[in-house]
Amino acid sequence: MARIVQKFGGTSVADLERIKIVAATVKRELDAGNQVCVVLSAMAGVTDQLVGYALEAGGSNNSPEYDAVIATGEQVTAGLLALCLQKMGIASRSWLGWQLPVHTDGMYGKARIMGIETAALEDALAKGEVPVMAGFQGLSPEGRIATLGRGGSDTSAVALAAALKADRCDIYTDVDGVYTTDPRIVAPAKKLDKITYEEMLEMASLGAKVLQTRAVELAMKTGQRLQVRSSYSDAPGTLVVDEDEIVEQELVSGIAYSRDEAKITLIQVADKPGVAASIFGSLADAGINVDMIVQNVSADGQATDMTFTVSTADLDRAVETVAAKKAELDYADLVSDANVVKISVIGVGMRSHAGIAQTMFQTLAEKGINIQVISTSEIKVSVLVAEEYTELALRALHTAYGLDAE
Amino acid sequence: MARIVQKFGGTSVADLERIKIVAATVKRELDAGNQVCVVLSAMAGVTDQLVGYALEAGGSNNSPEYDAVIATGEQVTAGLLALCLQKMGIASRSWLGWQLPVHTDGMYGKARIMGIETAALEDALAKGEVPVMAGFQGLSPEGRIATLGRGGSDTSAVALAAALKADRCDIYTDVDGVYTTDPRIVAPAKKLDKITYEEMLEMASLGAKVLQTRAVELAMKTGQRLQVRSSYSDAPGTLVVDEDEIVEQELVSGIAYSRDEAKITLIQVADKPGVAASIFGSLADAGINVDMIVQNVSADGQATDMTFTVSTADLDRAVETVAAKKAELDYADLVSDANVVKISVIGVGMRSHAGIAQTMFQTLAEKGINIQVISTSEIKVSVLVAEEYTELALRALHTAYGLDAE
Repeated sequence: MARIVQKFGGTSVADLERIKIVAATVKRELDAGNQVCVVLSAMAGVTDQLVGYALEAGGSNNSPEYDAVIATGEQVTAGLLALCLQKMGIASRSWLGWQLPVHTDGMYGKARIMGIETAALEDALAKGEVPVMAGFQGLSPEGRIATLGRGGSDTSAVALAAALKADRCDIYTDVDGVYTTDPRIVAPAKKLDKITYEEMLEMASLGAKVLQTRAVELAMKTGQRLQVRSSYSDAPGTLVVDEDEIVEQELVSGIAYSRDEAKITLIQVADKPGVAASIFGSLADAGINVDMIVQNVSADGQATDMTFTVSTADLDRAVETVAAKKAELDYADLVSDANVVKISVIGVGMRSHAGIAQTMFQTLAEKGINIQVISTSEIKVSVLVAEEYTELALRALHTAYGLDAE
Repeated sequence: MARIVQKFGGTSVADLERIKIVAATVKRELDAGNQVCVVLSAMAGVTDQLVGYALEAGGSNNSPEYDAVIATGEQVTAGLLALCLQKMGIASRSWLGWQLPVHTDGMYGKARIMGIETAALEDALAKGEVPVMAGFQGLSPEGRIATLGRGGSDTSAVALAAALKADRCDIYTDVDGVYTTDPRIVAPAKKLDKITYEEMLEMASLGAKVLQTRAVELAMKTGQRLQVRSSYSDAPGTLVVDEDEIVEQELVSGIAYSRDEAKITLIQVADKPGVAASIFGSLADAGINVDMIVQNVSADGQATDMTFTVSTADLDRAVETVAAKKAELDYADLVSDANVVKISVIGVGMRSHAGIAQTMFQTLAEKGINIQVISTSEIKVSVLVAEEYTELALRALHTAYGLDAE
């Protein structure tokens, strides 16, 4: 008998018909002799609507009232699933964040889970009940509802699985697993049977929107086995596990891309101490995250070009922020470009194998694709190229790394 | 400085624009130097939608999951009003049933309030804050959400006002007070400045859908002054108070009517002990409430006619229930009629004045309206007449009792 936490997202509980399908999925796991605990998101679109109300009412996204309003969607779906299970003859009850409770740090709108009290759930599981926990929510130290930030239900599920020492945490989504790259663009993309936490983290943060980054981080920290699988079939999905569990590691596991990138280049910035601190300090003060940064050694020791990327949504504000410091920075010109894409080759195998980056550069060169910016980490190589090359680059790289399905 | 509990119903908080108007109403009372505590319903239509979901999921209306689902509407409006007040510079926070808590008996779907802990609210009021309590909900003894049944927010408000020893509990509605009768039918109907609890109770249960019966009962029991007033103006409404407070009591305060009545007559029922017990016992077992009952003395001591009324919705089931006992009851025929209306003349003045009923019978006779059934209580006289006479009867009686506005 295994103990499994199942998490279903907003589209999986979008209406009552879908919730009944979720109930059938729960039953399948019970029939296989397993213990099941469920974590749910709100119906698709509901949280957005509630956020809209709360912001229009004048709330900021870090106020307890905002959280009291937007946490209601999960309360509804948890109650409804418990009712559907009961109707199928399966003992079940809903658990709200304050009822267990799920202790948080009380940072409203972006709370972190500090611990989950599981005594009541252990009792319920021992009696054969299916506990249905409302995701996304917990209790603040002052006794109010605190939410975990967008996508927080994934984190709720992983935290609960870790607290219950579950054998597996299954994240049910619209897709049937994690692919070597986006199958809508690269037809021969393959579903991965297994992927490491580190790789999943890069895939998640690079735009493969399957799992929330925070949830993967938490799973990695707690050693919680995760599975990304489809709400529409009972085929196995992709297991996210520790590196040790993967015997034959491919050099490259996947190729991710993100169109949500915009590039800013400062031409002929003064090459003197403190310039980078000034630029990136003021961007940080404005709450703008900078991703890739490239600065060349200056030829003359006087001035150099500096390029960095921000998310598309932050581009205008980033340009304004930097332009406001023109006098101090003394740059000749500022050029920005939102028509770029970041393509990343990811694989823990890179740690022990040279030549991965070289294959990437050569493949892109053969296709006549110019690389604008490069950044690397221990397990990935990312390049920024013109957005129009997205499909061409993904397909060429997918073939070059031997990822195409036979 | 007075302490006031304000309750706003579903149409008063139907959307964010309306909630902002509620916030302005709260501010007016604060500006007048008063302490204010608010109780809210869910946005109009939201609870019905949630009830629909819960029932479709297979829930009964007395299960804890049903309550967890349908209690969310008030959580949303309470949070939104607190945000709107904060935006106006007024310190405010929402309070959910489990947070105070509002203790209930745990009868899910129709819980009764056993007590409200007010220490936190007293602290808040002392600091000048406006507490906004989600109506309709409380905490069950086992630590779950329990709702109070339809219209429960009125009861929440009265219970809170009593617990806080509030000077007044203002129930904001679509109408600007309690009228001598329905002004849509009788143009010269007048708004009453004051009405007694007993009269309000009769008005409420007889179809003047301004206040929930349970809330009036609770107000009467606790001596809580109530005011029914309009969400759309700051004109005073109708005060519901103890009889002592009304110096010049009219003989008749109001005339109520209910079209939700249906009549069943059993022709030639055996006139022997146990017949009434058999009829009404089986109706009670079927969960059917019987309102008026008339049985004549039999001329021959053998058989008599018996007439009673039930709500229109229960008519078919009531007929079936009685027909199933035909053998035992040995009646000659069963006649039913849904085209009837109950008209009631209400006034505590009746206690000390004879002739009120006589005026009613005479007035109806003069208009050629036949009275089918009569029932009386200490402060009301009700008659059942054919539904087509509704308007004619109301107008004639309103004039006859001197209630027409000058």
